[in-house]
Amino acid sequence: MICFYEISFYGWLLLSSYCEALCCPHNIILQRAPCTCDLILFTALTTPKPEPSTLLFGKQFSDHMLTINWSEKGGWESPQIKPFQNLSLHPASSALHYSIELFEGMKAYRGVDNHIRLFRPMLNMERMHRSADRSSLPLFDKGELLECIKKLVEIDQEWVPYSQDASLYIRPTYIGTEPSLGVSRPGKAMIFVIIGPVGPYFSTGSFNPVSLLADPAFVRAWKGGVGAYKMGGNYGPTIAVQNEAVKRGCQQVLWLYGQDEEITEVGTMNLFIYWTNEKGEKELVTPPLDGIILPGVTRQSLLDLGRSWGEFKVTERTMGMKELLGALDAGRVLEVFGAGTACVVCPVGSLLYKGKMYQIPTMQNGPDLAKRFYKELTDIQVRASPHLYPKSKY
Amino acid sequence: MICFYEISFYGWLLLSSYCEALCCPHNIILQRAPCTCDLILFTALTTPKPEPSTLLFGKQFSDHMLTINWSEKGGWESPQIKPFQNLSLHPASSALHYSIELFEGMKAYRGVDNHIRLFRPMLNMERMHRSADRSSLPLFDKGELLECIKKLVEIDQEWVPYSQDASLYIRPTYIGTEPSLGVSRPGKAMIFVIIGPVGPYFSTGSFNPVSLLADPAFVRAWKGGVGAYKMGGNYGPTIAVQNEAVKRGCQQVLWLYGQDEEITEVGTMNLFIYWTNEKGEKELVTPPLDGIILPGVTRQSLLDLGRSWGEFKVTERTMGMKELLGALDAGRVLEVFGAGTACVVCPVGSLLYKGKMYQIPTMQNGPDLAKRFYKELTDIQVRASPHLYPKSKY
Repeated sequence: MICFYEISFYGWLLLSSYCEALCCPHNIILQRAPCTCDLILFTALTTPKPEPSTLLFGKQFSDHMLTINWSEKGGWESPQIKPFQNLSLHPASSALHYSIELFEGMKAYRGVDNHIRLFRPMLNMERMHRSADRSSLPLFDKGELLECIKKLVEIDQEWVPYSQDASLYIRPTYIGTEPSLGVSRPGKAMIFVIIGPVGPYFSTGSFNPVSLLADPAFVRAWKGGVGAYKMGGNYGPTIAVQNEAVKRGCQQVLWLYGQDEEITEVGTMNLFIYWTNEKGEKELVTPPLDGIILPGVTRQSLLDLGRSWGEFKVTERTMGMKELLGALDAGRVLEVFGAGTACVVCPVGSLLYKGKMYQIPTMQNGPDLAKRFYKELTDIQVRASPHLYPKSKY
Repeated sequence: MICFYEISFYGWLLLSSYCEALCCPHNIILQRAPCTCDLILFTALTTPKPEPSTLLFGKQFSDHMLTINWSEKGGWESPQIKPFQNLSLHPASSALHYSIELFEGMKAYRGVDNHIRLFRPMLNMERMHRSADRSSLPLFDKGELLECIKKLVEIDQEWVPYSQDASLYIRPTYIGTEPSLGVSRPGKAMIFVIIGPVGPYFSTGSFNPVSLLADPAFVRAWKGGVGAYKMGGNYGPTIAVQNEAVKRGCQQVLWLYGQDEEITEVGTMNLFIYWTNEKGEKELVTPPLDGIILPGVTRQSLLDLGRSWGEFKVTERTMGMKELLGALDAGRVLEVFGAGTACVVCPVGSLLYKGKMYQIPTMQNGPDLAKRFYKELTDIQVRASPHLYPKSKY
């Protein structure tokens, strides 16, 4: 059952420099975890909102941001919602030198009923918590952080586009701010959250297929590493490879791994293959969470939806390039698509591998499944699809 | 021939907000590269210098810092030397989200002749340039950047400790400051350099041996990745593993790689093994620069020195745990030590592998070679050892 989180509107009064006592609906698990009880608000003047049709991904931000500072001595300080502004960081901050940093990507949707909803946000909070643990950053109360984020979205609710093709992108970020150069657990840290309206991630539009460069010379993540965490260091190194893909006439990278050239992810998305398997069964395949795959919220949602339909096999398993190309050659591949919060679903039309361009019949097959996933997720996100209306926390 | 770079003292006048035209001894290779011609100085009040004996690595900084901003539209701006201060960064800066960041580690030494010298700094500039290229950051003129760094050190020359056990650590850092969230080549970037006096890196002191945890479950870098570059993302993930090593009673991590459990690096250092090989020859071995090893300046210097002596074989090759343990068992391992700018040389005394602690007779053997390397490098760095006195640029 896929559910979501609806933002309640309590009609909180906003005053400049106004410290508000909010109710705390979640238990505080950690001592001195960020707590909305102590939330401090500094409001900004509202600025004009861009036209939804002109939105570019991640370029525009709302009027406010959330910051929560932590130090070894003082623990978590009161969360602050304040005007969107530059961060003042010590130049030795560990985020800038050793990439002690992680982030999340979430969206708030304005429903056709004009309610604003977050989609399965506790999955993001849980992943963020795991990333923090792996990054040697202090842990936080997931429920409390979500409350703070809800409050931020509520304050800037007019920034949630009045459009079903656009949404409010939410970027929780967590950085080490330790002001010294030893490579060690930071004694200072900061969670900050910025939000801004976004249109479709890919300028080509949601249902134009992308072409992929599959070159085993480039490896995104590896066993024993941190590919399963949303840490900054997994992203920076991909840009040069992405540029290489563009040079070779492709739009995205298909990341391969190991001797069998396992297909792992595509660009910054999880990868799905819908095919007729060797037994003649219709099957949806995605690589398993074996340590090198990011556990995407959209990935999980597609698996949950596919399994709930019970119409085809849903399998998490590895698949090598040889197997994929063999199936392509045999005409058994129906659809290949990426899945992620930014793009939702992104069809793949071709694959450049060892100098040869392979066509993938995703578009010729509709893509029926990709479109169905897209519609179903959109229905949940903006239409509060009744059979999925909130029954559980996430 | 190992040489170094001596800082000249031209007696430049420092005035607050004073823009000084310096000579440009290097050709400007790139259009709009940072150029000392345009260097802008803002001087700070000097603060008291700490006692060299109280120094902790990377915790104290000098009075000034260097910043050089770049934008796609305007190219490189004038380098600025200004009072040490916080950076004001857009919260969407790509360094904070996607780890578009890299750094260098260098030292300035006060010689027994009271001259201040940098050790082979062009090797750092070249590595920084390669890291920038791999990070999709704009390239810069290596010679010009070094001139700016020299100028910074000159201005804060009183921060170079009057001690042969301490030095001035120099941290060039290069970050993406693109203020938007797309994972792509940044349109804004900043080089900044901070400097500060440092004592020995390890609190145990230079010649106390460290114990290593060798667990193949943890992998630092991998073929097809970015382990050969000094990018932030290579460091953050190591902290949790380092903490695990401490939990298991060790001080550092010995990073293994691949099916043969190749020994690659130790903590943040390159690794050297001095042994009697299977042919009965004395041999110094270090892993080759095959893409997963950081090309350390100290590493290169030890190889150069060892080869110049011609007294033992010097080999860059892989060595698996099985081979190392076999040699240990046969009594053929003489010394194992790490090498890096921060620590210079660091002897290894034991190894925890699959639950068993293996003793390494590094200290029982002097460690003659490690000590000789340390003395030779120190002689070059602080005594301007005559036979190595500057003949080439680096």
